[in-house]
Amino acid sequence: MKVGLVGYGKAGQAVARVLQDTPGFELAWVVRKSAGAAAQTVPETSIPLVGLGTSDWAAWLDAHPVDALVDFSQAESLHAYGEALRQRHIMLVSAISAYSPADLDYARDLGRDTRVMCSPNITLGINFLILAAKLLRRIAPFADVEILEQHFRDKPEVSGTARKIAQSLQVEDERITSLRLGGIIGHHEVIFGFPHQTVRLIHNSIERRAFGTGAVFALKQLAECQNGFYTFDDLMMRLVRQELLQSTPA
Amino acid sequence: MKVGLVGYGKAGQAVARVLQDTPGFELAWVVRKSAGAAAQTVPETSIPLVGLGTSDWAAWLDAHPVDALVDFSQAESLHAYGEALRQRHIMLVSAISAYSPADLDYARDLGRDTRVMCSPNITLGINFLILAAKLLRRIAPFADVEILEQHFRDKPEVSGTARKIAQSLQVEDERITSLRLGGIIGHHEVIFGFPHQTVRLIHNSIERRAFGTGAVFALKQLAECQNGFYTFDDLMMRLVRQELLQSTPA
Amino acid sequence: MKVGLVGYGKAGQAVARVLQDTPGFELAWVVRKSAGAAAQTVPETSIPLVGLGTSDWAAWLDAHPVDALVDFSQAESLHAYGEALRQRHIMLVSAISAYSPADLDYARDLGRDTRVMCSPNITLGINFLILAAKLLRRIAPFADVEILEQHFRDKPEVSGTARKIAQSLQVEDERITSLRLGGIIGHHEVIFGFPHQTVRLIHNSIERRAFGTGAVFALKQLAECQNGFYTFDDLMMRLVRQELLQSTPA
Amino acid sequence: MKVGLVGYGKAGQAVARVLQDTPGFELAWVVRKSAGAAAQTVPETSIPLVGLGTSDWAAWLDAHPVDALVDFSQAESLHAYGEALRQRHIMLVSAISAYSPADLDYARDLGRDTRVMCSPNITLGINFLILAAKLLRRIAPFADVEILEQHFRDKPEVSGTARKIAQSLQVEDERITSLRLGGIIGHHEVIFGFPHQTVRLIHNSIERRAFGTGAVFALKQLAECQNGFYTFDDLMMRLVRQELLQSTPA
Repeated sequence: MKVGLVGYGKAGQAVARVLQDTPGFELAWVVRKSAGAAAQTVPETSIPLVGLGTSDWAAWLDAHPVDALVDFSQAESLHAYGEALRQRHIMLVSAISAYSPADLDYARDLGRDTRVMCSPNITLGINFLILAAKLLRRIAPFADVEILEQHFRDKPEVSGTARKIAQSLQVEDERITSLRLGGIIGHHEVIFGFPHQTVRLIHNSIERRAFGTGAVFALKQLAECQNGFYTFDDLMMRLVRQELLQSTPA
Repeated sequence: MKVGLVGYGKAGQAVARVLQDTPGFELAWVVRKSAGAAAQTVPETSIPLVGLGTSDWAAWLDAHPVDALVDFSQAESLHAYGEALRQRHIMLVSAISAYSPADLDYARDLGRDTRVMCSPNITLGINFLILAAKLLRRIAPFADVEILEQHFRDKPEVSGTARKIAQSLQVEDERITSLRLGGIIGHHEVIFGFPHQTVRLIHNSIERRAFGTGAVFALKQLAECQNGFYTFDDLMMRLVRQELLQSTPA
Repeated sequence: MKVGLVGYGKAGQAVARVLQDTPGFELAWVVRKSAGAAAQTVPETSIPLVGLGTSDWAAWLDAHPVDALVDFSQAESLHAYGEALRQRHIMLVSAISAYSPADLDYARDLGRDTRVMCSPNITLGINFLILAAKLLRRIAPFADVEILEQHFRDKPEVSGTARKIAQSLQVEDERITSLRLGGIIGHHEVIFGFPHQTVRLIHNSIERRAFGTGAVFALKQLAECQNGFYTFDDLMMRLVRQELLQSTPA
Repeated sequence: MKVGLVGYGKAGQAVARVLQDTPGFELAWVVRKSAGAAAQTVPETSIPLVGLGTSDWAAWLDAHPVDALVDFSQAESLHAYGEALRQRHIMLVSAISAYSPADLDYARDLGRDTRVMCSPNITLGINFLILAAKLLRRIAPFADVEILEQHFRDKPEVSGTARKIAQSLQVEDERITSLRLGGIIGHHEVIFGFPHQTVRLIHNSIERRAFGTGAVFALKQLAECQNGFYTFDDLMMRLVRQELLQSTPA
């Protein structure tokens, strides 16, 4: 699968490395915001690293065709490349967290003509953690729930992921505890307390490249979907739903 | 809900305590194997503690009617009380692990006339752990999997629960590590290793009474089911399936 | 070693069981507060369970001699048996947390004539946790420190142990996080965060009988000490100091 | 403190970054094995990156004086720079694990004229873990001990650190469990199992730069020592011994 990447900040660079390293995927080019006049490439490769204005996208995609776009840039980019994608039925995996409701409406509309996945966090493990926690919350609403997150000393606020977990479980934000310690990259833990047992769901981030694993997962799953608008959750559920229907008792 | 309990070993006693303590449930009587001639009761209560032969069950159930039977005794008991239950449409929650295929066939047949749940382990947290691990295995079959269990020093073999987890995930038994240490009651951990992140699903047993929490859960769920044969998994899935179907994208 | 136990509440009962089960120790009798007129024994044993007034202690100890007294009752008891112990050079292991400064002065004074150990918490693992955390704090004062404690839902306040850890490490009480969940018996964790590594010291209580393990440890160590007043920490340090002096470089 | 670094492999590069980032330290130059003829520098700095033969060391140190040398290269280097260090009383912190007994004898001999610290692993947290585990082993030799290490999928053998822990605790290598999973950088856990409680000492590596934290610690401590040969343990013990002597009971 030929992939174009939009965004070359820390997350984008990490995703680029994963796409380069994953068999079956080819990182065709990277679009970054502040590209200069000079031709550039991703370091130690010949992969082009370019800047594109809104009017440039159609010609670029025709000259450098891809099967999918992965977007780790900013909300505005969606509108720059949207119509060009739509006309060419190019898949989109977007990890932008700052979309406005209007942006999301536009993304949903793109889903009428191509396959679109938008999720603010595309880390596979985190999305699974939320899914599993939601299931246990549904199965055992009587269990006590606490959300514990641990990050590096200077991380300023409660982690957005922890907030999203709380929201998904419909527990109050007071149930979130944030510890700030040394250089911890990212520890999220959901604890379910029962009278005579405890269940802990724990995610540890090792590296920012975890975003890339999620992008690759999303691309593979999306490739098997019909046109439409999906969240990361939808793509996981798709696999899991089959599992659940299979095991339905007669 | 009026409940009769069969079996009064360590697990049975723990379940009796939970049934006594749970609002909405009434432990009506307990049947134990080695009841003597003298009338006896559950300590510090007036709950009868009796021994019954196969021929005694029908008369006992008519004289001491219940809505459900919870069985923590042995495989044979099923055949002693089976027809008496069937005729009175009394629910059955059985946690016997030693059923033969023929026993299970009989239990399934009972399910034509009443509601029957059989599972060798009815700890809620453990059953959830297996469910969640199966889902993640399905979502991310490429992740490395290890199963780690820790128990008290004298526990002789690999835990049956760990074996069941391995079987459910279709990983080899070599992926199970058993540590034996002091007085650990029961720690089960399934670790999923990804290149850039780790997910840990951990269950800690605090007390044998966790069986009781599972029995109560099963009774509540079964009460909302139609006649049939169910596993603990089926009862959890029933709740979860609704969740999954609700969140189906348009 | 013949031991008399003072106090027969939940902790006292747990300690009694450990003393009965530990080779080399004999639980000779138990003194409890509210003993009635009738002769009583520890259940399923012939160990006397008696009530004693202050004036009864000397005669009781002469008629029922012991090598050591373990006290899990209340602050007042110390004054009831103190002089009787002193005259007979009977060792004392006291786990009372409510001693006033005057009580402690009196205990110290007893140490002039016999061996006395007083510590508000005599759980071996907890005392070790505090020792180890103090050492690491000394070695690496630049590391971030957080104290995390998890207990059963209804535990009303921050755990006294967590407070003692904070005090020992000279970190503020705001560094303590208390989670209340289901039936967790006792989880204490001290986390040291470094820029590129993390150290976690974790203690899990399984059972109240852990107090008994500490009492047995204290009795064994005290038996090797000279008359004096000791804390649990002193007894551990005594062993550890030898280790440290042994490994002194030439 | 002006520092010269020998060795510029993965560990050496990580240490170089920490030395550059730590206030009070100045990385003066780096010696690497395969330096070419062309003058080179540490990337994005003007710090020289040179290759030196045995006969070059004296002149180099006179022209580019430092207070200390940190060695992350190979066993041979010690003999190349040894006499030059000795004559100039330059401190040495060496993290070489492959020293032969003869090499160590030579290092000890250097300790007669300057301050020398040699340890195969200079990660602060790991060394503390070993120290703490040894203390608890001494305090509670009756506790069960298990060593659990988790590393990335391709790590071929049992971790050397785990072996060293086992050796320090005098437990057999069978007590080590090695799990290989995804991209785990380094998890070492020593579990002490008591009948009614559990103590876990856990070290998690986040980054190779943890070596640098250890080197900086060693340099600071060594600067306060007299001439002599020290291990990392000795340097920690030095701090801790003061703590222990302070708290000696009267």
